[in-house]
Amino acid sequence: MANQEYDVVIIGGGPAGLSAGLYTARARLRCLLIERACIGGTIVNAGLVENYPGFPDGISGVVLADLMHEQARKYGLETLITDVTGLELEGKQKIVRTVGGDFNAKTVIIASGTDRVKLGVPGEKEFTGRGVSYCALCDGYFFQDQRVAVVGGGNAAINEAIELTKYASLVIVIHRRRELRATRILQERALAEPKIEFQWNTVVEAIEGEDVVRRLRLHNVLTGENSTLEVSGIFVATGAKPNTGYLKGVLPLEETGYIAINEKMETGVPGIFAAGDIRVNSVRQVVTATGDGATAAIYAEKFIAAENGH
Amino acid sequence: MANQEYDVVIIGGGPAGLSAGLYTARARLRCLLIERACIGGTIVNAGLVENYPGFPDGISGVVLADLMHEQARKYGLETLITDVTGLELEGKQKIVRTVGGDFNAKTVIIASGTDRVKLGVPGEKEFTGRGVSYCALCDGYFFQDQRVAVVGGGNAAINEAIELTKYASLVIVIHRRRELRATRILQERALAEPKIEFQWNTVVEAIEGEDVVRRLRLHNVLTGENSTLEVSGIFVATGAKPNTGYLKGVLPLEETGYIAINEKMETGVPGIFAAGDIRVNSVRQVVTATGDGATAAIYAEKFIAAENGH
Repeated sequence: MANQEYDVVIIGGGPAGLSAGLYTARARLRCLLIERACIGGTIVNAGLVENYPGFPDGISGVVLADLMHEQARKYGLETLITDVTGLELEGKQKIVRTVGGDFNAKTVIIASGTDRVKLGVPGEKEFTGRGVSYCALCDGYFFQDQRVAVVGGGNAAINEAIELTKYASLVIVIHRRRELRATRILQERALAEPKIEFQWNTVVEAIEGEDVVRRLRLHNVLTGENSTLEVSGIFVATGAKPNTGYLKGVLPLEETGYIAINEKMETGVPGIFAAGDIRVNSVRQVVTATGDGATAAIYAEKFIAAENGH
Repeated sequence: MANQEYDVVIIGGGPAGLSAGLYTARARLRCLLIERACIGGTIVNAGLVENYPGFPDGISGVVLADLMHEQARKYGLETLITDVTGLELEGKQKIVRTVGGDFNAKTVIIASGTDRVKLGVPGEKEFTGRGVSYCALCDGYFFQDQRVAVVGGGNAAINEAIELTKYASLVIVIHRRRELRATRILQERALAEPKIEFQWNTVVEAIEGEDVVRRLRLHNVLTGENSTLEVSGIFVATGAKPNTGYLKGVLPLEETGYIAINEKMETGVPGIFAAGDIRVNSVRQVVTATGDGATAAIYAEKFIAAENGH
């Protein structure tokens, strides 16, 4: 059977992909968005999104993703939930290989975002799903009236900590420095929240327990002191890495794995665009990702028109 | 009296400026947004905004601007309606001169957008406000059951034409080419609308009337034929030019007048950023302007932190 043909295949269903889908659909291009898990991408972990312009009272990340999806589908965007396994070039044709079949595309918009960085300490892998989590919104509910730790000092970590105060009796933020990187207003909230405590200048060296997590082995990088912290859960929010494994050898990537682009969101391969957290120097906000997605879509449309000789 | 001191002064209250204001306010910077006319900028002319992700049924440009403004004010953004007359540098200090006084700023975000290009034909200036308009949403109401013309073929022109069908008995789109530049879905709508007609390959050579507009002198660029079109109003939507007059000699501008930036929205002057339609190569969408604004704000915050030695 011949592969299905599309004008645009969008890889990733977060804000960047959904915005690209809205724009390509409104341009009446035949477009398919492929998402491996949840429509919305990392914003489904965000709890209340307060900084996407247009929603003064904030909006839940899940609801915002749903609205964006509904909007793009209204104009004809198709969506498929499956895993992308590879991207190949055959002349001008791009072939997107997935677990659910292969798709031919004139243009591809890569918006597959980032995954949380793992701590890489003993116990992390063994206890994942049994006390180790990368998503407070997904798993916070399981820690009612228990003590939990959050590792990290950026927006993601502080958002996770605030989200967890809904459930946990105490949230201990473990951060390797003395100062948070999170936006000032999030810092103020976390510092004012009686259920949040901080362990500064501290790193996690091991996660221990029996069937589930019971304690963390900590190390103070300033004093050299080692200690133990009893918790039922640990939420890792120390950073993110781009989901670009399947693109090695196809596209020029930065050393960090992020995709190099220009201001048109063009990558090093004609007809392949990148948008959102996965591209180099993104400030990783919902509104910048959606902006990127729209830009990529507009230039994908121009690319197709030029190929068709318009 | 000493000038008031701000961390950030934002010039322009459209989506780019409002988004920058939201981000700088949430970063707890002291920030002032200066707008010369209407909060919302050109989106107040947009009628229904259908392509800003998060609003599946579309949202009125005026309402969206209002929501964005409310959101930024909630976190402490100050707003002032006045005309900016100049921007000066005094060492690291930036001085924003306005009709309402001067303001000192550590950083400036320029988001003062674009103005409509004038046709530059006889009658245009004389009849402005008496039949010649640059904003259907502002003035469409005055043309109930009358014949009006729209000049242009891009998104702005087609949006204006569609908006005008609410009031006018007939809308004639005058376009210098045989094909529209507007997004496919807008083209489809306009072509299917019985109240919209097209005059292809045609330019306006003069606007005539007595106290108000009565007719247009037209010229067909293909056949060379001249003709007269009786209308009560003419809406000019042929393009836009950046509001950068007050920046000449302060900032590096492109030949077109747009501001050169990098992917951090940094201009050629440290601490001065540009965002939205006014920067070079913008695709001029609400969502890309808001994305730019957030990016500029985040890098303005980093700039101030670096100056303070953090």
